[in-house]
Amino acid sequence: MRITFCCTDTASEPWLNGLRAALPGAEVSLWEPGAAAADYAVVWAPPQQFFDEQLHLRAMFNIGAGVDALLKMRLPPGTQVIRLDDAGMSVQMAEYVCHTVIRHFREFEGYETDMVKGKWSFRKPRSRMDYPVGVLGLGVLGERVARAVAQFDFPVNGWSRTPKAVPGVQCFAGAEQFDAFLQASRVLVCLLPLTPETRDIMNHAHLSRLRPGGYVINVARGAHLVDEDLLALLDDGHLEGATLDVFRVEPLPKDHPFWNHPKITLTPHTSARTLRSESIAQIAGKIAAMQRGALVGGRVDPLRGY
Amino acid sequence: MRITFCCTDTASEPWLNGLRAALPGAEVSLWEPGAAAADYAVVWAPPQQFFDEQLHLRAMFNIGAGVDALLKMRLPPGTQVIRLDDAGMSVQMAEYVCHTVIRHFREFEGYETDMVKGKWSFRKPRSRMDYPVGVLGLGVLGERVARAVAQFDFPVNGWSRTPKAVPGVQCFAGAEQFDAFLQASRVLVCLLPLTPETRDIMNHAHLSRLRPGGYVINVARGAHLVDEDLLALLDDGHLEGATLDVFRVEPLPKDHPFWNHPKITLTPHTSARTLRSESIAQIAGKIAAMQRGALVGGRVDPLRGY
Repeated sequence: MRITFCCTDTASEPWLNGLRAALPGAEVSLWEPGAAAADYAVVWAPPQQFFDEQLHLRAMFNIGAGVDALLKMRLPPGTQVIRLDDAGMSVQMAEYVCHTVIRHFREFEGYETDMVKGKWSFRKPRSRMDYPVGVLGLGVLGERVARAVAQFDFPVNGWSRTPKAVPGVQCFAGAEQFDAFLQASRVLVCLLPLTPETRDIMNHAHLSRLRPGGYVINVARGAHLVDEDLLALLDDGHLEGATLDVFRVEPLPKDHPFWNHPKITLTPHTSARTLRSESIAQIAGKIAAMQRGALVGGRVDPLRGY
Repeated sequence: MRITFCCTDTASEPWLNGLRAALPGAEVSLWEPGAAAADYAVVWAPPQQFFDEQLHLRAMFNIGAGVDALLKMRLPPGTQVIRLDDAGMSVQMAEYVCHTVIRHFREFEGYETDMVKGKWSFRKPRSRMDYPVGVLGLGVLGERVARAVAQFDFPVNGWSRTPKAVPGVQCFAGAEQFDAFLQASRVLVCLLPLTPETRDIMNHAHLSRLRPGGYVINVARGAHLVDEDLLALLDDGHLEGATLDVFRVEPLPKDHPFWNHPKITLTPHTSARTLRSESIAQIAGKIAAMQRGALVGGRVDPLRGY
C-alpha cells in the first residue's frame, strides 16, 4: 500500500514519520511531480497538478475540518474525500466559544480594563436567561460546542440542515425553521461548512433577526459573513459586538475596517488547530478500516459540499 | 413566624418583598436596634448589636458562600448558621475559572494583543496534558468547577479535607496527600472556606511545589494567599501568572503591588455574586423545611469553620 503526502505550509517530516510508525506496512512518501500512483493521499491545499496525476487514489484525507477549498479543484473522478472527524479540534472549538461567550456575558474585559486603570468597579449581573446562544451547524464541532455552552446553564439553540437531537439544546432544522432559530438567539456562533448554500449566510437580513444586543462569533469561514453587514449592524447598535477568527482573506488585509474596531475582537485563525498526533492516529485508523473493507466516517459528499 | 433581615450594603426592599412573597405566612421585617425577637434571620455582615439582641433565632441564613467573617463575631449561643448551598454561585465560579484557565492555556490575551497591534501571529499550540488543573476545596462550588474544567479534557486534580469522589477528577484528601496534589498540578484554583487551617495556605512552600510554569487562581478569600510569596514566585519565574478576584483588603489598597503587575490579572470580587431570586427561593425552602422539622443542608459547624 502506497501513501502520498502533499500538504502546503506544513512541516512534512513529523507527519511522514508519524504515518510510517502508525502504518508499518505502508510505503509513505512526500509527493513530488511525476511520483508513482498512490492508494491513499494525505493533503492540505495541494496544487492542481497533484490531482491531475494521482488518478488511482482510494481515498484522500484532508487534514482540516473544512473541505471548501479542496472541492473547488478538479478532483480525480471517483476519489473519496475524507474529512477529519475531530482530531482534537472540537474541544478547541468548545474552549474558544465558551471563552468568548463567558467573557462577553460576564463583562470580564470591562472589569479587567477598569482594574488596569486602578478602578474597583461594579456592574449589575446580567441574567443568563437573556443570553440564548444559537449554534449554526450541529456536526461534530457544533454539537460539542453547543453541549459545552449548555453546561454553563445558558439557553442553547442549534440549527442544522437536517434534523438533529442534542440533549440540552433546542434544535431547529432546515430553511423553514431558520428564522425561528435566529429570533430565539442573541449570540450567534457559526460552525457551518462553507457551501454555496451557506456562503454569506450571516448577512444583514439574517443578523437583524437576532435579539437586540446580539453578538456574532465566527469560527467557520470568512465567507459565511458579509463584512459590511456586520459593520452596519454594529454601528446602528443592533449588535453589541463580534469575535472573529476567520476572514474572507487571511491574513486580514492591512486596510480592513475590522482592525481596531472598538466592538470587534480578532484572533488569527487559531480557534482550532489540526493536532498532528491525533490526526495521524485517526487517518491510520481509517486507512486500516478501509483496507478491511469497512465504511469510515467523515466521507465528503461533493454535491452536498461537506 | 417572624423573620428579620439585616444585610449591610444590600438594597433591602427587593429582599423583603421577595421573602414575603415566598413565605406568605411569615412576618418579614428589616432589623433595627430594639426590634422584637425573630425566629429566623437573613444576614450579611450584621453589627455585633444584632447578635447581642437576637437571642431566640432558630437559624441565621448568611447570603454568601463564605461565613468566615460571621464566625468571628460573638454569636448567640445555640444559633444554627446556614450557608447558601449554591443559589447560582457555582455556575458563576465555573464560568470564571474556565474563562481564566482557557484564556491562559490558549494564550488568547497574547493573540488579541497582537491583533490590536495589527500583527497576525502564530504560537505553537500547548499540550493540555501539560496543564493539570488542581482545585483546592471540593464543596458545592469546587466540585462544579472541577467538573467544568474536566469537560475541556484537562487533567483535573481535587483536594479536600475529607475524602471525596468526583467523576473525571483525581481526588486527594487530607494533610498527608496535600503535597502529592500540589506536585500533580500546574494551575491551582482556590475554592476553600477560610478557616484557621486554610489561612495562608497558598504560601511560598506550597506554591513552590506546583509544576514549573504554575498559575494561581484565587476566587475564595484574600487571606488564603500570602501576597509577597506569590510576588516572589512570579518574579523568579516559577509561576507564570495569576488571576485574583479576592484580596486581604477590599477594595485593593491603592499602593498594593498587585496593581498593574504584568503577570497578574485582577477582577473586583466579582467571580460569583449572590443572586437575589435564587437565594430567596433557597432560604424560603429551607425555612419551610425546618418548620416541618426536617434537617437542611448548608449547616455550618462553628468548630470546623464552614
